[in-house]
Amino acid sequence: MAAKNPSTSSRQSGQLKTPKGTRDWVGRDLLLRDHIFTVLERHGGVPLDTPVFELRDILAEKYGEDSRLIYNLEDQGGEACSLRYDLTVPFARWLAMRSDVQNIKRYQIAKVYRRDQPAIARGRLREFYQCDFDIAGTYDPMIPDAEILRIISEVFTAFDMNITVKLNHRKVLDGMFTVAGVPADKIRSISSAVDKLDKAPWAEVKAEMLEKGLPETVADRVGSYVRRSGTLSALLGELSLDTELCGNESVAEGIADLKLLNSYLEAMSVAEEVSFDLSLARGLDYYTGVIYEVIPQNNGKTQVGSIAAGGRYDNLVGMYGKRPVPCVGISFGVDRIFTLLDAQRAKKSGSELAHEADVYIMAFGGKEFDGLLADRMRVATRLWDAGIRAEFSPKVKPRSTQQFNASDGVPVAVILGQEEVAAGQVRVKRLHVGDKNAAEKDKGQLVSMDDLVEEVRKLLDSTVPLS
Amino acid sequence: MAAKNPSTSSRQSGQLKTPKGTRDWVGRDLLLRDHIFTVLERHGGVPLDTPVFELRDILAEKYGEDSRLIYNLEDQGGEACSLRYDLTVPFARWLAMRSDVQNIKRYQIAKVYRRDQPAIARGRLREFYQCDFDIAGTYDPMIPDAEILRIISEVFTAFDMNITVKLNHRKVLDGMFTVAGVPADKIRSISSAVDKLDKAPWAEVKAEMLEKGLPETVADRVGSYVRRSGTLSALLGELSLDTELCGNESVAEGIADLKLLNSYLEAMSVAEEVSFDLSLARGLDYYTGVIYEVIPQNNGKTQVGSIAAGGRYDNLVGMYGKRPVPCVGISFGVDRIFTLLDAQRAKKSGSELAHEADVYIMAFGGKEFDGLLADRMRVATRLWDAGIRAEFSPKVKPRSTQQFNASDGVPVAVILGQEEVAAGQVRVKRLHVGDKNAAEKDKGQLVSMDDLVEEVRKLLDSTVPLS
Repeated sequence: MAAKNPSTSSRQSGQLKTPKGTRDWVGRDLLLRDHIFTVLERHGGVPLDTPVFELRDILAEKYGEDSRLIYNLEDQGGEACSLRYDLTVPFARWLAMRSDVQNIKRYQIAKVYRRDQPAIARGRLREFYQCDFDIAGTYDPMIPDAEILRIISEVFTAFDMNITVKLNHRKVLDGMFTVAGVPADKIRSISSAVDKLDKAPWAEVKAEMLEKGLPETVADRVGSYVRRSGTLSALLGELSLDTELCGNESVAEGIADLKLLNSYLEAMSVAEEVSFDLSLARGLDYYTGVIYEVIPQNNGKTQVGSIAAGGRYDNLVGMYGKRPVPCVGISFGVDRIFTLLDAQRAKKSGSELAHEADVYIMAFGGKEFDGLLADRMRVATRLWDAGIRAEFSPKVKPRSTQQFNASDGVPVAVILGQEEVAAGQVRVKRLHVGDKNAAEKDKGQLVSMDDLVEEVRKLLDSTVPLS
Repeated sequence: MAAKNPSTSSRQSGQLKTPKGTRDWVGRDLLLRDHIFTVLERHGGVPLDTPVFELRDILAEKYGEDSRLIYNLEDQGGEACSLRYDLTVPFARWLAMRSDVQNIKRYQIAKVYRRDQPAIARGRLREFYQCDFDIAGTYDPMIPDAEILRIISEVFTAFDMNITVKLNHRKVLDGMFTVAGVPADKIRSISSAVDKLDKAPWAEVKAEMLEKGLPETVADRVGSYVRRSGTLSALLGELSLDTELCGNESVAEGIADLKLLNSYLEAMSVAEEVSFDLSLARGLDYYTGVIYEVIPQNNGKTQVGSIAAGGRYDNLVGMYGKRPVPCVGISFGVDRIFTLLDAQRAKKSGSELAHEADVYIMAFGGKEFDGLLADRMRVATRLWDAGIRAEFSPKVKPRSTQQFNASDGVPVAVILGQEEVAAGQVRVKRLHVGDKNAAEKDKGQLVSMDDLVEEVRKLLDSTVPLS
């Protein structure tokens, strides 16, 4: 809290705004994050929070061409620093510094920074939230990979969103390219062409491959593989019959992994949400095993693309320190998820500034009525002490209508009258939201001050929450 | 998640570290923030989150001399931006942009940035957390001020910390200086000398006043006033008898405010934590009413100074826009609070990476034992679906000792055996933490898979939490 002589320049030039590609978040949206945390903590996640800027060296040469999007801090004497670009590099830096940590499930929700062209309506900003959950360390094969997929399912169930998880395996993909006849030095660039199949038609993708120097027969063979998708068990069955494909060692390893994974996904009841998609390639080079991308189902008009993505990266941490630490993880695109939820919710009413209360404390009286403010405060204090969210009018002598309006949406009222208060009693009453007649008939129940908390709790427990 | 060619320079020069004055936060400490949120939401707080950087104009000329501590972003083409210095200016900017908001209780927890000399052991960093709660808008006098003081008390009760709130009123302070004979143009500079009385002896403060050109008689008169402190009711009684002091209009207004405040604090059961301290001045110019500072009691060796501070600032928001919005608020020094709690907790054992689980799922068997991994997964899935934090060993065939060690501190175990599982049954058992003999005698209870969740809930409900 500090401000001395507010500049007039910002007002005169009309610059009372947030920087380009950034926005304020307020109210309801922020509370949505709790849904994610509940799931991540249920799975033993430990929260990590790293500085918003890192030494420039730590970020340098990590993002290829995209490095130009990194925000640098001004050289004000001292170390050269840059704002973080993602949460994975800081996690890898932290793991490399903490050689005492063998295995960890960590989560981090934080903003990342990219000096890109913002597209705010689609949830694409320069400052945006990511929420990463990663399992680091050596485990028996595919067990952590299955748990990550289970977590994805739980997170979107908590948001009441239907999703499809597109899944592939880098070893299947790379081996398949080899079998199709793609030269080793072209695999990554052909892979990135294939990755566009979710947005572009096959003809376009094929044209790109030919342009990249692939013979047409090879391109067609790639096409016959990568345009296949289906449930894991169905497609695994199909691929197993392809002896030429399975003769490739890399493909065979990938298929063995996926068979094991599928049995775990069935045990965890999430196999049905997963679609094995041989065109999924993911842009980043460092993935070494399963890769996946989450697509919202029936998202109507709001086109936001993938809303979470991740995979296994066994070699990344080893590049920062001496010890290799295999990892598998998922990154949730929090802003895109909120943009989707906002679109769903637009039909519903209510301000984003709304907050929830359990109890509204009112006072009424006749001519001599002094507002009973200190008594309302005493009642609030009892309820606060019990952890109950209680509010009252911040007026010495509040009007009845003011108090009724302010109690809109609050499930329980505590009502004070001069005589009852003098006798150590107050009235507690359920507020029949949406049914004014019933509310007016219900006179509530007179209780002694000492029983107040207990009686309020009973009413709260028997009230069905609105949201 | 992105990293391509990790630079070797950072490893070679040993620069695998966070920038100066920053640190990573992990695990337990971060969860402490929930204590604060619970209280702030109980009082109707709406969360606000603003960008980590603001247009430089918005921050310019707000912090006087301290402006040199502001971190600027590099000029990479585009707008000139700086990292936020506190949470008050962004809140005022937001309020000025949102003319539809009349009244709001908002909270924000976020990191702020100051290029100061860090003193990490005392919780003083260049990147540090603040948590602000402010009540903005027009209310009947002193009602929101009293609620802020109540919130302070609830927050530190949640942390199990004993505190004293030092409180003063700018009008009492300024009027008192006038009565003592301090010229109007010297009031702020004398005020800042007086503010040092908590760290320096009177003789030193007096010397500073004389140096600032105050006649000795005036300095002594100031001294006779400001060295007084006590409970609000006692000191208000004393001051009311001082007719010369109360003859000053500003003092009289301040005292009327404080009398009203004290009656509200008594109704809210927090009057005892408040000490009226006439030497408290607070550095910032913009306060217009009550000011306060929170000091930990018996904090032993860890000297962290004040751990929260705030006051009423009725004119600040009006400087940014056309409309004035009176505000009162508190800023919690989250890092300092965590530093104190860490010192208290140092005696206790346990890693900061510890996380909590409700249930550990184990499997045991003889020679033919295959580890029952898929069954452990199915059990975990049932528990996760019910919102229960369940874990199991990520080994196909885990050893008994591994599983016992991993279940340390977890209150309930679900135990799988080949035959029981074949019959659709598992064993649930309370883990008698700290009492191995009792644990070995207790064989638990055999339940059918369908009753599992219910039986686990019963055991969890009857288990006293350790933390």
